[in-house]
Amino acid sequence: MDYNKLALEMHEQNKGKIAVRSKVTVKTRDDLSTAYTPGVAEPCRKIRDNKEEVYRYTAKGNLVAVVSDGTAVLGLGDIGPEAAMPVMEGKALLFKEFADIDAFPICLDTKDTEEIIKTVKNIAPCFGGINLEDISAPRCFEIEKRLKEELDIPVFHDDQHGTAIVVAAGLLNALKFVGKKMEDANIVINGAGSAGISICKLLLQFGAGNVVLVDQKGALCPGEDWMNPAQKDMAEITNKEKQTGTLTEIIKDKDVFIGVSAPNIVTAEMVSTMADDAIIFAMANPTPEIMPDEAKKGGARVIATGRSDFPNQINNVLVFPGIFRGALDARAGQITEEMKMAAARAIASIISDDELNEEYIIPGAFDERVCKAVAKAVAEESQK
Amino acid sequence: MDYNKLALEMHEQNKGKIAVRSKVTVKTRDDLSTAYTPGVAEPCRKIRDNKEEVYRYTAKGNLVAVVSDGTAVLGLGDIGPEAAMPVMEGKALLFKEFADIDAFPICLDTKDTEEIIKTVKNIAPCFGGINLEDISAPRCFEIEKRLKEELDIPVFHDDQHGTAIVVAAGLLNALKFVGKKMEDANIVINGAGSAGISICKLLLQFGAGNVVLVDQKGALCPGEDWMNPAQKDMAEITNKEKQTGTLTEIIKDKDVFIGVSAPNIVTAEMVSTMADDAIIFAMANPTPEIMPDEAKKGGARVIATGRSDFPNQINNVLVFPGIFRGALDARAGQITEEMKMAAARAIASIISDDELNEEYIIPGAFDERVCKAVAKAVAEESQK
Repeated sequence: MDYNKLALEMHEQNKGKIAVRSKVTVKTRDDLSTAYTPGVAEPCRKIRDNKEEVYRYTAKGNLVAVVSDGTAVLGLGDIGPEAAMPVMEGKALLFKEFADIDAFPICLDTKDTEEIIKTVKNIAPCFGGINLEDISAPRCFEIEKRLKEELDIPVFHDDQHGTAIVVAAGLLNALKFVGKKMEDANIVINGAGSAGISICKLLLQFGAGNVVLVDQKGALCPGEDWMNPAQKDMAEITNKEKQTGTLTEIIKDKDVFIGVSAPNIVTAEMVSTMADDAIIFAMANPTPEIMPDEAKKGGARVIATGRSDFPNQINNVLVFPGIFRGALDARAGQITEEMKMAAARAIASIISDDELNEEYIIPGAFDERVCKAVAKAVAEESQK
Repeated sequence: MDYNKLALEMHEQNKGKIAVRSKVTVKTRDDLSTAYTPGVAEPCRKIRDNKEEVYRYTAKGNLVAVVSDGTAVLGLGDIGPEAAMPVMEGKALLFKEFADIDAFPICLDTKDTEEIIKTVKNIAPCFGGINLEDISAPRCFEIEKRLKEELDIPVFHDDQHGTAIVVAAGLLNALKFVGKKMEDANIVINGAGSAGISICKLLLQFGAGNVVLVDQKGALCPGEDWMNPAQKDMAEITNKEKQTGTLTEIIKDKDVFIGVSAPNIVTAEMVSTMADDAIIFAMANPTPEIMPDEAKKGGARVIATGRSDFPNQINNVLVFPGIFRGALDARAGQITEEMKMAAARAIASIISDDELNEEYIIPGAFDERVCKAVAKAVAEESQK
C-alpha cells in the first residue's frame, strides 16, 4: 500500500482528522438560556466557590492537550509546529478512538524550555491531562519534570514512557516464554536518548539486574568523557560489570537486545554471539536495527519490532490511551512509577501462559481488552 | 423557567458542552498506517516544505481558540480560569451550532498582559483564528492590538466588536424606521468601558455625526481630569458640542440612547426629554438601564435590550459565528474595520423595508439567514 499517497488524500479530503462536537443542542431560546446566558452563570458560580467543581460541570476531566514544539517529529526531526500538526491530530484521534478521551493538538511556536513550561501551565486550567509529544532531548526531560512538579494534573511524555511501558510489557512476556528472569537477564539497550534511558529506568524498576546502555560512541560507563548529564546519571546505576566498547562487543553473551537507534546496525553474526534464546526488540522505524529473518538466522528466539507487518509490534497505542483513561477516571494528580509498572503488567497479562509464543508476546494494536485493562490497573494503582 | 437549575443539571449530566470528534475511522491496520505512522509523515513533509499547506492537510483552518483569563466573565467579574470554563465552552458550542466552526476553550492561568500575548502567540500555530473573551479592560485593548499586529490569523475581541457590530446593525435599521440619518442623529452612549468605546468607534465609522460618551463621572470631554487614556482619546473625537455633565443632562434632546452600563439608571422622565421618535438600546444584563414599558411611557419609539424575552434582542450570537465563518472561508489575515461594517450591514439587511417595524429592527438569534449573510459579506469584503 502507498500510505503516503493515501495519507495525503485522506488528510486533504477531511481537512485533518479531528473536529469539535457539541454535547448539547441549541435549537431554542431555552436551550440558549441554559447552555449560555443567563443559566451558564450558575455553574460558573459553583466553580468560583469550589474549584474542584470544574470536573463536575465542564469537559475538563476528559480533555487532554497533545503538546509539541515540533522538534522531534517521527523520523523527520525539527519540522516546526505547523508541520507537526498532522501527528498531533493523529494522536488526538487515537486518544478518541481507543479511549474516548477528548484530546486536542497544541503545537507550540517556541522551542524555549522555560517558555514551553510557562505556556503549558497557562493553558492547563481547561485540561485534565497533558501529553507531551515529539519534543527533542534534553529539553523534554526538564519540561516533563517541571510540569509534573508544578501542575496538579497528569503529565506524560509518551515518547519516553509510553515506549518504556510497552517494551517492559513485551519483555516480561518474552522472558517468561524463554524461561529467564528479569533479575538474571543481561540486557543491552542501544540508543541512549530519551526513549532508551526511559526504557532502562523502567526495566530497573522491574528488577533488571544487568543493563548496559550503548550510544553511538559506545557503552555508558563511569569515566567515559563523551556522556551528557542524563547519560552520566545512567552510567552510575547500570553496567555493573563496567563494560566499555562498541555494540558489537557489548552485545556478546547478552540475553536481550533492545534497539531504539538506527536501521540495519545489527547483523545476524552479532546476534549469534548472544546468549541462547536471545530476545531482540529492534524498534528503529520504519527499518529496524535488524530485520526479523536476519535475527532468526543469528539464532534469536523472540523478535519484536515497531512494525505492524511483522509479529510482536511494539506500539505505544497499547499504552497512552489506557494510561490517561485510568488517570482521568481516578482523577490522579500524576502518573507515578507504580502506575507505569501496573500498566506494563496489565498489557503483558492480556496474553495467557497457554497463548504465549514467540510470535505473540504482546497484544495486537486493536485488541480492545488492552485499553480497558490498562485503565483499570492504572486507576486502581492510583487509588492505593 | 429556572435556568440556573436547568443549567446545573445539564452541565453535570453532559460533563460540559463540547467534546472532540474523529473525522476518520481507525478500525484497521491500514487506517492506522494512513492516519498515523507511517503515512502521516507525508502531510508533515508537505507542510514542512510549504507552511501554507497546513490549511490543506489539517484542521487548523476551521479551529478557533476561545481565549479568556476569566477576569470579566458575564456579570460575575474576575472569577478565574476554571470558573470561566462553562462560558468558554458555551461560546465554543455556539460557534459549532451556528457556524460549524471547531472552537476550543483556552482558559488562561495568568492575568499578565505580556504573558497572555506570549501564550496565545505560542499556541497559535494550530488555530485558524483567536476569539478573545471576557478579558477585563484596559488589558483587553493592548492584548487585542498586539495579537492583531503579531499574528497572521484573525483576532477578534467579541465583547468589544461583536457588541459594536450588532448595535450598529440594529441602529441602522432603527434610524431607517424612524426616518433619521446617522450623520444627523444625536447619540449618547452610557458606559465608556471597552464595549461602549468599541460601539462608539464603529458608529463613527458609519458616519455618526454627534456621539457623546458618558461614564459614571459624566460626559467624556477634553479637559475632564478623571478619564483614563482610552477615554481621553475618545473625548478628542466625539462630543462635538463639548457637553459636560451627567447622563440626565446629556440625554436631553438626543435621538438615540445606547446603554452598556447598569440596571435601572434611566427613567421614563429622562426619556421624555429626548428628541421625538427616540431610540433606546438598553443592554445592561439581565436588568436593562430602563425596562421597555417604562421607556415607552417616556415616549421612546424603538426599544432594544439584551434580553430574549423582549422584542429586538441585541445578541452577539448574530455576529461572531458569521464573522469567523467568513474570515476563515476567505482565509483572511485579520478582521478589518471594513469587514466589521460589512457584517453590520449584512445583519441589518436581513430585514426588508416592508418588514421593518418598531419591534423588528434586528433578526432573531435563531434566524439561519444571518450567519450565512454575515459570512458572505465578510468574506467578500476581505477579498477586496
